[in-house]
This record gives sequence, structure tokens and C-alpha cells, in this order.
Amino acid sequence: MESKQFSARESTALERSTADVDSENRTRVLLIENDSDDARRTREAFEAISTETEIDVRANGEAALEYLEERIEDSTLAPDLVLLTLELPDLDGFELLETIRNDETLVQLPVLVLTDSEATADVNESYKRAANAFLAKPSDPDEFETIVGAIERFWFQRVSLPPHGF
Amino acid sequence: MESKQFSARESTALERSTADVDSENRTRVLLIENDSDDARRTREAFEAISTETEIDVRANGEAALEYLEERIEDSTLAPDLVLLTLELPDLDGFELLETIRNDETLVQLPVLVLTDSEATADVNESYKRAANAFLAKPSDPDEFETIVGAIERFWFQRVSLPPHGF
Repeated sequence: MESKQFSARESTALERSTADVDSENRTRVLLIENDSDDARRTREAFEAISTETEIDVRANGEAALEYLEERIEDSTLAPDLVLLTLELPDLDGFELLETIRNDETLVQLPVLVLTDSEATADVNESYKRAANAFLAKPSDPDEFETIVGAIERFWFQRVSLPPHGF
Repeated sequence: MESKQFSARESTALERSTADVDSENRTRVLLIENDSDDARRTREAFEAISTETEIDVRANGEAALEYLEERIEDSTLAPDLVLLTLELPDLDGFELLETIRNDETLVQLPVLVLTDSEATADVNESYKRAANAFLAKPSDPDEFETIVGAIERFWFQRVSLPPHGF
């Protein structure tokens, strides 16, 4: 699958802060995704499934790390969960995962790999680097809601997530 | 909640090998649980929900490590997922998690903490030690099926699990 870069305008729209709307009780997801179509599909799936989840998107590893460093200790703005593609334009996803796991303020953050790859080596390497789960992106764009629904039901309705700023 | 020790007879029954029944295509769960009532409830919940999942139980950390070391490289007998209580009679759950994460043959194994504790410190410490998820045991015994159903749907129907013997 061809990886599409964000246009400046798409990027601004997708990365807009939603912090001004009643953030306290919401679940916040950081989606690290370089493919603008997949980012839009994932965002739309979350919006269709739950009004309680906010999703922020960053399109490369550096922007994602900057976002995380700024927000991790803020109980209203810190993400509860990260979705990470392995195909990024700057760092690769494994490097980013390693950086998160070696940072004492980020180490406990749940990171789900959500990626085009279904290669056994990528699955194994993701778990070795302490990804919390590995999910293959759906081949059918209409199935993003199925994946997002599964994430929502397990991670936001069943699991105890790590507290912010702990 | 009072922790109940297994009687010798219960322990033998719960730890029985199910390897002789058509194991190849099944998903295998190792439950590390010292409370025999909760072990039974969890096993019964898996049995009620899926005929494709086999569950083996070990009641302490040493027995669990022995089981894992013996089986991890066998593609028919290795567990796909570990459920770990934090309250064990020998090692504590955190020590066991650390041992698994420091063993290069076990590091990639998904470990879900399923425990009586809901303490924030335990949740945070579990994620820091690379538990894949933290789940509180249900207060109502009838709700084990809800938890087990959520595990089954996310981990066995959506997630790509690490391959055996990789």
C-alpha cells in the first residue's frame, strides 16, 4: 500500500487540538500514522463508535515524541493509549517504541501497533520491544470500525489503564 | 479477598495436561493463579465461551516458570497468552513478570495481569514492567465470563499474537 504524505492543510486539520472541549473525562488516543487516508478512517471510526474518545494524530516520529513529552504529565491532556504504525517517514516504529520504553515518564504508556505489515518478524519484534498488542490494519477500509470497536471495548471498557502523571 | 490454597487433588485436576486432545490449532492460555475458586471460574468461563481455547493452570511462580521453560519453544504446547495474578505464594507477580521480560525466549509472550488489586500503584507498576494489560478480577463471580469473553474477542479474534518458537 502506497504511503501518502499529509498535505499541510490535512495535517493541520487532523492535528488540531481538541483540548478546549470538555476533556477531563474523555479517553484520549494518540494515533501515530503517516498515511492520511488511514488516519482519517481511524479517526472517523472512533468518532462513530464513541463520543467519549478524542483522537489526536501525528504523522511522524519526531512530532509524536514532541506531543508525548509535552502532555504526558498533564492529567487532562495526556493520551491514555497510543496507536502506532510501523511505517513512518523519519524514525521507524520500532525505534519510536524503544524510545518510549526507555523514557521513564512514558514507559508505562500502552502502545498498540496498528500497521500494514503482517510479517511474522514484525509481530515478534513488536512484542519483544514491549508493544502491548499487534493489530494488522484491515484490508477493507470499511473494517476500521471493527478494529476500533475491538480496541474501544477491550481497552476502554475492560482494562485498567495506567494513571496520568504517575 | 482471602487467598485459598489448592488442595492436592484440585491442583492435580487443574494442572492436568490437555496436550493429548487435538492441540495443534488451539489457542493455549497459561493461568497463573493461587486462588483455586478463581482458577476454576476462569477455566469454566473459557470452556463456556470457546472450544478452541485450552487453559492450563499453575498455582505458584516456580511452577509457572518451569511450565514456560519446558514449553516455550514447542509450537503445539507453548502458551499464546499468560494470565497472571499478582498474589502468589512464592514469587510475587511483579517478580515473575520481570523474570519473563528478562528471558530472551519468553520476552515476547503476552502477559495480562488479572488480579484482585485495583490499586493505582499496582496498575502503574504492572505496565512499567511491560504487562500487556491490567484487568481487575470481577467482584461478582458470575462476571468471569464477561472478562474472559473480552479477552477472547480482543486477543484471539483481533490481535496478531507472537509466533511460537521464534
